[in-house]
Amino acid sequence: MIDVEWGAGAPEDRIAAALKADREHRIKGVMVVHNETATGVTSDIAGVRRAMDEAEHPALLYVDAVSSIGSIDFRFSEWRVDLAITGSQKGLMMPAGLGIVCVSPRAAEAEKTATLRRVFFSFADMRRANVDGYFPYTPSLPLLYGLRESLAMLFEEGLPNVFSRHARLASGVRGAVHAWGLSTCCRAPRWNSNTVTAVVVPPHVNAARVIDTAFRRYDLALGAGLSKVAGKVFRIGHLGDLNELMLLGALGGVEMAMLDNGIEIVPGSGVAAAQTVWRGRKALAEAEAISLAA
Amino acid sequence: MIDVEWGAGAPEDRIAAALKADREHRIKGVMVVHNETATGVTSDIAGVRRAMDEAEHPALLYVDAVSSIGSIDFRFSEWRVDLAITGSQKGLMMPAGLGIVCVSPRAAEAEKTATLRRVFFSFADMRRANVDGYFPYTPSLPLLYGLRESLAMLFEEGLPNVFSRHARLASGVRGAVHAWGLSTCCRAPRWNSNTVTAVVVPPHVNAARVIDTAFRRYDLALGAGLSKVAGKVFRIGHLGDLNELMLLGALGGVEMAMLDNGIEIVPGSGVAAAQTVWRGRKALAEAEAISLAA
Amino acid sequence: MIDVEWGAGAPEDRIAAALKADREHRIKGVMVVHNETATGVTSDIAGVRRAMDEAEHPALLYVDAVSSIGSIDFRFSEWRVDLAITGSQKGLMMPAGLGIVCVSPRAAEAEKTATLRRVFFSFADMRRANVDGYFPYTPSLPLLYGLRESLAMLFEEGLPNVFSRHARLASGVRGAVHAWGLSTCCRAPRWNSNTVTAVVVPPHVNAARVIDTAFRRYDLALGAGLSKVAGKVFRIGHLGDLNELMLLGALGGVEMAMLDNGIEIVPGSGVAAAQTVWRGRKALAEAEAISLAA
Amino acid sequence: MIDVEWGAGAPEDRIAAALKADREHRIKGVMVVHNETATGVTSDIAGVRRAMDEAEHPALLYVDAVSSIGSIDFRFSEWRVDLAITGSQKGLMMPAGLGIVCVSPRAAEAEKTATLRRVFFSFADMRRANVDGYFPYTPSLPLLYGLRESLAMLFEEGLPNVFSRHARLASGVRGAVHAWGLSTCCRAPRWNSNTVTAVVVPPHVNAARVIDTAFRRYDLALGAGLSKVAGKVFRIGHLGDLNELMLLGALGGVEMAMLDNGIEIVPGSGVAAAQTVWRGRKALAEAEAISLAA
Repeated sequence: MIDVEWGAGAPEDRIAAALKADREHRIKGVMVVHNETATGVTSDIAGVRRAMDEAEHPALLYVDAVSSIGSIDFRFSEWRVDLAITGSQKGLMMPAGLGIVCVSPRAAEAEKTATLRRVFFSFADMRRANVDGYFPYTPSLPLLYGLRESLAMLFEEGLPNVFSRHARLASGVRGAVHAWGLSTCCRAPRWNSNTVTAVVVPPHVNAARVIDTAFRRYDLALGAGLSKVAGKVFRIGHLGDLNELMLLGALGGVEMAMLDNGIEIVPGSGVAAAQTVWRGRKALAEAEAISLAA
Repeated sequence: MIDVEWGAGAPEDRIAAALKADREHRIKGVMVVHNETATGVTSDIAGVRRAMDEAEHPALLYVDAVSSIGSIDFRFSEWRVDLAITGSQKGLMMPAGLGIVCVSPRAAEAEKTATLRRVFFSFADMRRANVDGYFPYTPSLPLLYGLRESLAMLFEEGLPNVFSRHARLASGVRGAVHAWGLSTCCRAPRWNSNTVTAVVVPPHVNAARVIDTAFRRYDLALGAGLSKVAGKVFRIGHLGDLNELMLLGALGGVEMAMLDNGIEIVPGSGVAAAQTVWRGRKALAEAEAISLAA
Repeated sequence: MIDVEWGAGAPEDRIAAALKADREHRIKGVMVVHNETATGVTSDIAGVRRAMDEAEHPALLYVDAVSSIGSIDFRFSEWRVDLAITGSQKGLMMPAGLGIVCVSPRAAEAEKTATLRRVFFSFADMRRANVDGYFPYTPSLPLLYGLRESLAMLFEEGLPNVFSRHARLASGVRGAVHAWGLSTCCRAPRWNSNTVTAVVVPPHVNAARVIDTAFRRYDLALGAGLSKVAGKVFRIGHLGDLNELMLLGALGGVEMAMLDNGIEIVPGSGVAAAQTVWRGRKALAEAEAISLAA
Repeated sequence: MIDVEWGAGAPEDRIAAALKADREHRIKGVMVVHNETATGVTSDIAGVRRAMDEAEHPALLYVDAVSSIGSIDFRFSEWRVDLAITGSQKGLMMPAGLGIVCVSPRAAEAEKTATLRRVFFSFADMRRANVDGYFPYTPSLPLLYGLRESLAMLFEEGLPNVFSRHARLASGVRGAVHAWGLSTCCRAPRWNSNTVTAVVVPPHVNAARVIDTAFRRYDLALGAGLSKVAGKVFRIGHLGDLNELMLLGALGGVEMAMLDNGIEIVPGSGVAAAQTVWRGRKALAEAEAISLAA
């Protein structure tokens, strides 16, 4: 790992500056998290790619796309990503268990000269066995069958529809947060994630208490804030096989858990805000579908 | 079927009057629906039993307990019911498929001299085969295994807890109906069902439109009113493996479907009313549990 | 029910004779079991149809096709069957629970004037509700989804392939019975069923003991003989989602249960006979598939 | 890895000799595969432990117990194993996905000073998170629920019964191999595995052909020989939720696949040999159970 000067300004500009300063090309890879699950922040991968192009730097582009692939638009080829990873348990709607890696020809070439010792994670072993329909280690067949069905579901709905459904649902959740008089973790609206929303609680409240009440009293699993935001945020996940009513239940439960912990919100206010967003969009989407069909 | 004079007054009084008038004992059975699924009305079976005792009439007591057994307190022995029926798809939380019949010794005796032709529904055939662990016809083994698990779940939670959970959930739903400025189908609160609530829509609205919107736009299945109340009510089912958050989602969806059809309610008002009911009761229940454990 | 003279000769001839003798057309329906599950006898429905045509008799043709539909060729239209019934638990490979009835226009017409009281089994109620996509009573949705998948599986394999698979498997089972020095219940090979084989045990043995040993010692469920053949036969079912190896396991288990009960067979002899039948047919089928593909 | 002199004699003696020669204790760990899945060879872990004790050497004892735990007797504490691993997909009867590691206090202590870089496989991270009921990474909850059920099944049957069932089934398989005139991979009967049997084919036959025929023609999955024994053996797995009839089906299928590839065996001979073994043992086990109960 190389420590680079990390100034002020947009992340893309800072990446460009760091790469331009690296005239000896000691930086081998730029690693970006597409959707930061712990804070609900989505990065601009296309912007990062532009910054790398602008700097004319040969580093590989690695993207952690665990909580974006299958839920938020991600373009491996168009953005010339070299290595993207995801898991089975997010947008692919399965139990945890599969790690899925997509490798560009450049990254595959780089592996040949890489010196880190590896066994289980060797691409070469996997490719060699895959040629004949085998795996180097016992694969999880149920998850492979599940993956086939997940992909069928995603393509049946259509990826653009899947992405706009996540955008619509996330928009309702953010409407609720605003109605509660609270805010998300993001510094600017452009970073708001469409798959997870981290809600900042008032300073006098420990977010861990809200999470605990939600789980123990209402069977609702909220995510915790980690490191810097521990105790300051709780997270509402909203990705995968999800619709408005499931989220209304979750928002209603979040309201109860916040009220139980002394956070002064108007009961039902977040639910009402989400309803308003979704009623408008649903009606709009239906009107569009009808006009398209006509 | 015998037409009896059906005067005014409480149902139990009218049953008692009809039985007293039947000096020749032409009435062979009194048939009561414990919980009327189409209107959300619960009858008072203990009261019916008292009326029959008061009339000193030998009629058998038949109870349709399809949507009460396993969700609302029902006492076959204590109330001296002669024949009770239920199905697998309500409080027993399984797919439709099993019809379950409970027969008193008196009803079993009566079957011997009954003249209605029957094959599939013969108790005698069933009893004869059951003795050796068999069935007269191919049984649905998956449902029998499911029944074993359903009963284990009910007894694990404890029937008194199951009944009070249904009462608590129903109470929240009725709070929502009241907050919407609407009412249930029942003439008096004592008849309100704890497993299904029929909501009367304003006169200018066709309830079928609300049901249709809920299903097509929000994936929410509401029940329709039948015969006399067709178009005038929609029904929210709330029994079985259900908790507060599932119902909050349903109530939120009902609000959207009503708003979409021009019913003027305050968005989120029903959800807020239910939250208030449930937050109080949950806290109370926990406090009680703690003091009991202490 | 009308008692008709039942002479000697082929069943079809006797049906024709009985119908010809019925000049007043008191016989309203001819009821035939296509595949008799308890004895492993398959009737010739096309032959019965020819006999009815020959007699120029207007009776309706009713067929119990429970253990043939989906496994043995059955032609409702071509044979002009008026009413056929089956269940979900045989060739449709599902749990018991669905009764499926196919009704000809003539039978539907006859229902209108039929006087037998019926509620649950009324075709008219079912048709009336089905028009709008509903059912008169709560349907078993899991079985309806299962039916969709069963039919998809049958059509994916192709009905002619499904029928020839059952014929091939049954042929191996009969090879095993012959190798054991035993015989099936059928008087002539043409009646042998392709979905179930009833094996006649030697006179000194109670077939119930074989069935009991198979179940308790080897987890193998064999069918019992009923009424006339009780204790004289046991039955091996071979229909649905089944292949050679499952049947080899069953035949091997039958051999153990027979040996344990003193039936003197050569161990492995039935298995070897079935293997010989199946190896020949499999190889033949593959050769054909290759020449078709070429 | 250290190259040690590997002489002739029993493996345990050779281990003892190597350890005694290592006076400077450069050997840090002795790694043994309890049950070698690719060849069907079971090692004597108790013997290895004795050899280590005899040599008075402080090396840690590592055991790959993937295909033995839950099927063959394995004693972590009694044999003072320091680190044992298994997976979910063998004796625990689940899909692949869980790696299960058992660590002795000595091994846990050794980890603290170990210098190999690790992240995902760090015991320390796992222990730290487990304390509060969490995992350092998203766990596969379905497999954890499955594990609870697997263990319940194993303890319900009783581990001694599970081990003797595997011994009984394996004994029948070896009887079949002998009846075919073939042999297993093992030099002496004491090494024969009770969970997998590798069958050596005649020299003129490629075992890969037998495996291919079994899979394509009979839906039977046999294991292949690897490296030194590639093409020379095929493997029959026999562990987990398995009984006699499933194995009879497998043995019958193996016979067909061998015959199809010109291996001259008597059809049904292996099945008959296994039947003889199992009939005797089943009867014996039942007699024992009855006398124990008396």
